[in-house]
Amino acid sequence: MADDDGSEVLVAQRLVVVGGDAGGMSAASAARRRLGPDELEILAFEKGRYTSYAACGIPYLVGDLVPTAEHLVARAPEVFRERQQIDVRIRHEVAEIDLDRRAVRVRDLEGGTESWEGFDQLVVATGARPVRPPLPGIDGDGVFGVQTLADGIAVRRAVDEGSPRRAVVVGGGYIGLEMAEAMVRRGLDVSLVEMAPQPMLTLDPDMGSVVADAMRELGISLHLGEGVEGFELDGGRVRAVVTTNRSLPADIVVLGLGVRPNSVLAEEAGIPVGPTGGIVTDRQMRTPVEGVWSAGDCVETFHRVSRRPVAIALGTHANKQGRIAGNNLAGGYEVFPGVIGTAISKICEIEVARTGLNEREAAEAGFQFVTATVETRTRAHYYPGAEQVKVKMVAERRTGRLLGAQIVGREGAAKRIDTVATAVWNHMRVEQVAHLDLAYAPPFSPVWDPVLIAARQADDAVRAAGR
Amino acid sequence: MADDDGSEVLVAQRLVVVGGDAGGMSAASAARRRLGPDELEILAFEKGRYTSYAACGIPYLVGDLVPTAEHLVARAPEVFRERQQIDVRIRHEVAEIDLDRRAVRVRDLEGGTESWEGFDQLVVATGARPVRPPLPGIDGDGVFGVQTLADGIAVRRAVDEGSPRRAVVVGGGYIGLEMAEAMVRRGLDVSLVEMAPQPMLTLDPDMGSVVADAMRELGISLHLGEGVEGFELDGGRVRAVVTTNRSLPADIVVLGLGVRPNSVLAEEAGIPVGPTGGIVTDRQMRTPVEGVWSAGDCVETFHRVSRRPVAIALGTHANKQGRIAGNNLAGGYEVFPGVIGTAISKICEIEVARTGLNEREAAEAGFQFVTATVETRTRAHYYPGAEQVKVKMVAERRTGRLLGAQIVGREGAAKRIDTVATAVWNHMRVEQVAHLDLAYAPPFSPVWDPVLIAARQADDAVRAAGR
Repeated sequence: MADDDGSEVLVAQRLVVVGGDAGGMSAASAARRRLGPDELEILAFEKGRYTSYAACGIPYLVGDLVPTAEHLVARAPEVFRERQQIDVRIRHEVAEIDLDRRAVRVRDLEGGTESWEGFDQLVVATGARPVRPPLPGIDGDGVFGVQTLADGIAVRRAVDEGSPRRAVVVGGGYIGLEMAEAMVRRGLDVSLVEMAPQPMLTLDPDMGSVVADAMRELGISLHLGEGVEGFELDGGRVRAVVTTNRSLPADIVVLGLGVRPNSVLAEEAGIPVGPTGGIVTDRQMRTPVEGVWSAGDCVETFHRVSRRPVAIALGTHANKQGRIAGNNLAGGYEVFPGVIGTAISKICEIEVARTGLNEREAAEAGFQFVTATVETRTRAHYYPGAEQVKVKMVAERRTGRLLGAQIVGREGAAKRIDTVATAVWNHMRVEQVAHLDLAYAPPFSPVWDPVLIAARQADDAVRAAGR
Repeated sequence: MADDDGSEVLVAQRLVVVGGDAGGMSAASAARRRLGPDELEILAFEKGRYTSYAACGIPYLVGDLVPTAEHLVARAPEVFRERQQIDVRIRHEVAEIDLDRRAVRVRDLEGGTESWEGFDQLVVATGARPVRPPLPGIDGDGVFGVQTLADGIAVRRAVDEGSPRRAVVVGGGYIGLEMAEAMVRRGLDVSLVEMAPQPMLTLDPDMGSVVADAMRELGISLHLGEGVEGFELDGGRVRAVVTTNRSLPADIVVLGLGVRPNSVLAEEAGIPVGPTGGIVTDRQMRTPVEGVWSAGDCVETFHRVSRRPVAIALGTHANKQGRIAGNNLAGGYEVFPGVIGTAISKICEIEVARTGLNEREAAEAGFQFVTATVETRTRAHYYPGAEQVKVKMVAERRTGRLLGAQIVGREGAAKRIDTVATAVWNHMRVEQVAHLDLAYAPPFSPVWDPVLIAARQADDAVRAAGR
């Protein structure tokens, strides 16, 4: 349409973002960098009180390595509003997406009112929801999830003010490990219950048992191969965790049973959800519905080695995907190339990392493979502070293609996974990896870096297995 | 030929190895793993007293991080002899190689006698020789090179016993930096003289100046852009270093002027030497002379990015090349794929690393390029111990191919160069690097790893530069 003076008047499009954390706010920010408020109105709804917070920092808030919750908030709503003209409304929950009307029904959790807000484009960034089985007593006082920053604040307060003595962590994955560290730091007696026979199911059993041993050395009681049947309460307060084998006294319980894509809202609206439970997108982060995008823990993505859809809840993916969605919806072109399952964690001095496929995943994906495991040091043997590191590599039989790796060690060990991840990403063969020009000086590495030694051993295994 | 009982009798071939350090002894060991003493006799000559020692550990011996020289010896001559039937003769110098007679003339440095030893195959692993200009006073007492373990022992003794107060390090490269750290650790007043306007010439000036600032903060007096003209002696003992600008009082002087391939012996024998001064080999580590191999600091190798011959003295290359030479001469097949100039160093808390091509090298190799430099943190901003890190990337204009990177930072910063090195090795574009699945957890990285941020910025620069 033409204005009085004959110039074109742009009618601003409206972008609605559902979810004000990493995926959603990265999308909003990237879109804003390309289009000003005259071209794109951006409205973001977040049901919690915080935007863009570091959920992965919660264990460190509880463990008192981070003094207050505010330290975990990367950018407050006012900052988005003032600096980027992004209208973020916290404590507003999107209750329904109507794709025909192209509108969302929004519930003001403070005022209790509801309203419909139209959109031209929509980013669904509803994140993950914690696994929370309906066990007897799970809603008792002192039983905590650790999904949201509000959860983290509540656990911290319980430790600060309740003076608990015994903590039980349920679940031996990344969050379980990190919460166990937090409780150790706070001086509690810590038990960890895990249904599987090992902690860290993303590692192979042999590497998981190294982690288990290290945790026991830290004084953590491990109850592996035990399922949780419920929680004993006393006047509404937890006093024990009941497993298949025993009753574990507990003053505080942390649930770390993993997360699933929070895709219910999308699914109810008719936005396709894949076999992993995550929202389906293409490489541009477009859902199959015109003008609807998705990013973050609620989507399923492509595993570049297994070539299968996977749902991996991780801040880095959420940030990248959000940025890509925002760029593209604003007229750019950038694609998310998928993931290879890189992850890292630590519990006190023990560092754990993995990338690509472990043995089970490689077998499931149809690979025949060999493995090699080496124990070496993070620095030259004569240099002070050389720490132990164990590296396991999985390589395809016949081709020698590096499929994945796992690292367990002490300080300086685990971040080496990035080198391996870059090699996996590039389809390198273990023989090629063994010849990489990696940095060497005594304070940083033995003359053969652990990654090189492991690759060399894996190459020997490939040769020994023949063609 | 047939033995009495009709079985074949093998006449063992003889391998002679010239040089008993990383390259030579790796070759000897690899050959021995393939062929037993009945098939291959191995004779190795080392003019010094030590075999397979970690030359790169010398600064830590001097700095008292390593208590004795013995800690730097990976494997003593007796161990080679007893466990691997490798006849290592220390204090034996090869004075001449006669390719026609296929023999070497060996001088017993203790006994003073000479003898000729024949060979079927020869590995030349004569290492590097330090640059040592014929300056007045350079042979004075208290002026030390730091090339051999014997040098290292001498410097350490001079610090332990001579109670020097002022040290001057000549040369601002890796060894200069590390020796400056050693002297700081030993409580000396340290000055460093470098002819170039920056330390660390393998870095671009902007990154070199970050290192310079950090060194000044450590209390080191930097005299950049000053050449050394000589050394003032007092009764044969050094008392000052005379530069183009001043006279610097010195109780002890360390020369760190770099090294050159020690290829004189080979060249005199008619083994071809290339433009870098290094011995020419093919990818199997064969010299152009039949049955003669070479490995380690004395060879020139192939730079995979510049596609030019380079001579880079580094223990990791020596070990790999030696192993490859040994494997191949014993009937195996393994090739050395070249290098990309990855290097790392630290001076006290400051970590420095580089890989690929810097600006000058990229220009010399004929690339048009853009650069991006980011300053960020090694860990999540809220996690204790997050340290500063500065990453610079050089990317080809138009294609966005990552050509090289430089990192300067504090603890946990520099070893990230391996991720970049693996990306350079694989010809990745910076846009691809920005999407890599690198490990994230708050104790290890911000949600966008410094490598990802730098790559993203470099990609922006590539796009801004247009096609």
